[in-house]
Amino acid sequence: MLGSLVYVGGMPLEEALDVRAIDGARLGDELDAIGYRGGAPLPARPPHAFVELHIEQGPVLEEAGVLIGAVTGVQGISWQEVTVVGQSNHAGTTPIRLRRDAALAAARIAVFLRELADRYGGDQVCTVGKFDVFPDLVNVVAARAVLTLDVRNTDEHALRRAESEIDDFLRTVAETDGVEISVRRLARFEPVEFDDRVVAMVERHAAAAGCTVMRMPSGAGHDAQMLARTCPTGMIFVPSHKGISHNPAEHTDSRDIEAGANILLRTMLELAEADFR
Amino acid sequence: MLGSLVYVGGMPLEEALDVRAIDGARLGDELDAIGYRGGAPLPARPPHAFVELHIEQGPVLEEAGVLIGAVTGVQGISWQEVTVVGQSNHAGTTPIRLRRDAALAAARIAVFLRELADRYGGDQVCTVGKFDVFPDLVNVVAARAVLTLDVRNTDEHALRRAESEIDDFLRTVAETDGVEISVRRLARFEPVEFDDRVVAMVERHAAAAGCTVMRMPSGAGHDAQMLARTCPTGMIFVPSHKGISHNPAEHTDSRDIEAGANILLRTMLELAEADFR
Repeated sequence: MLGSLVYVGGMPLEEALDVRAIDGARLGDELDAIGYRGGAPLPARPPHAFVELHIEQGPVLEEAGVLIGAVTGVQGISWQEVTVVGQSNHAGTTPIRLRRDAALAAARIAVFLRELADRYGGDQVCTVGKFDVFPDLVNVVAARAVLTLDVRNTDEHALRRAESEIDDFLRTVAETDGVEISVRRLARFEPVEFDDRVVAMVERHAAAAGCTVMRMPSGAGHDAQMLARTCPTGMIFVPSHKGISHNPAEHTDSRDIEAGANILLRTMLELAEADFR
Repeated sequence: MLGSLVYVGGMPLEEALDVRAIDGARLGDELDAIGYRGGAPLPARPPHAFVELHIEQGPVLEEAGVLIGAVTGVQGISWQEVTVVGQSNHAGTTPIRLRRDAALAAARIAVFLRELADRYGGDQVCTVGKFDVFPDLVNVVAARAVLTLDVRNTDEHALRRAESEIDDFLRTVAETDGVEISVRRLARFEPVEFDDRVVAMVERHAAAAGCTVMRMPSGAGHDAQMLARTCPTGMIFVPSHKGISHNPAEHTDSRDIEAGANILLRTMLELAEADFR
């Protein structure tokens, strides 16, 4: 979503062009290399309205047996990378009481995060997707562990409360397990609410086309959340088979895509005539 | 300890020569390449007795302020590799109730293993040293996790009880977390008890030399545990600074090594005269 962020003025163009990939490649150089570096002035003039059609990338529509999602907004996202430093020791010769086990502390954090999600309920999701330990050997107590915490909620207050609880828990684990814990923030976006007039329009056109429809938040980030800063914005979701995305098995039926595209068309035609001033 | 295992007849020579390293290199070929493949008949004739001097590789002697460990035996070892298969999903769009999170299940197992060690107490140690998740990305619920369980105890009954409890817990987690769990045994050795006459001899020579001495089990595996199958066997430990081993920071004071070597000498001289029949 870097492009849409720059488009709406959320990041200076030069800063974006200087972003480097994990392999060291610089975005500006790569755009030059393929002739994709544009020359339009940025930030750009806000559009009249913005509607994005997307696969859900989740299992909710399919599970509910509903064809169209009228997306109400995008969950706030808190990404943190947690590094736990303990002491590497021989797994056979080091009594439990003398250990400072980084892998164990990291595992406690992962279990805590799920418990937090269960307690909060509703739209709260929490994920430890990345979990690396070092030296990662069967007979060596881990000296270091690095894990990521992905926490999302549609409610900014809940998100802040979760972050604060996590801070407290990390301090507790550092003490009980004798490890040092440091945190690096990888990303933080507040929840975004789409324009209710656009959401209602999507809902109405879906129903008029005879499609089942439900309101739902987006758990994934989308360009629409950037555009929402500058103009009335909405999104249309179509089902993802088994909720799978970013994976070769990602699939949405052609008929579902066609239905979504028709609702996008009708919504765009109505928006073209709408006066939002 | 492959060499000593073959020496005592615990593994046929040809099977040992066919062992392959993780890079695919075959032991027999590598021994030929450096001219180290011997021609002595195997299994070999049991020695009269066997005593091994070794660094402790753990922090116990240093913490106790004792110079010499009279090793009573070697802990039994149970190594298992656990593979957890769940479902890869988008971390933002997949509600908690629809997840089958392999990393979370693996973390629960790691926390359980420490709780088991705490409950058992005594010499019980448990370690999850290797912990890998796939695809290992911040915003993807892990599809798969592979972790190792290293469980050691001087008491074979306790070790079996621990293994049985672990089996039960893995079944529970598979059910509660909706994941598939499979287990591969990597290694299993019963505890070895050294010959009490040799242990007492080490203890006596240490005391006679004016050294502090304590009886203790070895948490690490050693050639002596293989030789113990065929002859009266013992070991002498000297302190490891901070318990560190298999690491560039491994260190034992020269004076401690000298003390250990002198006790080894005196013990060997006495053993040479001893009649064990």
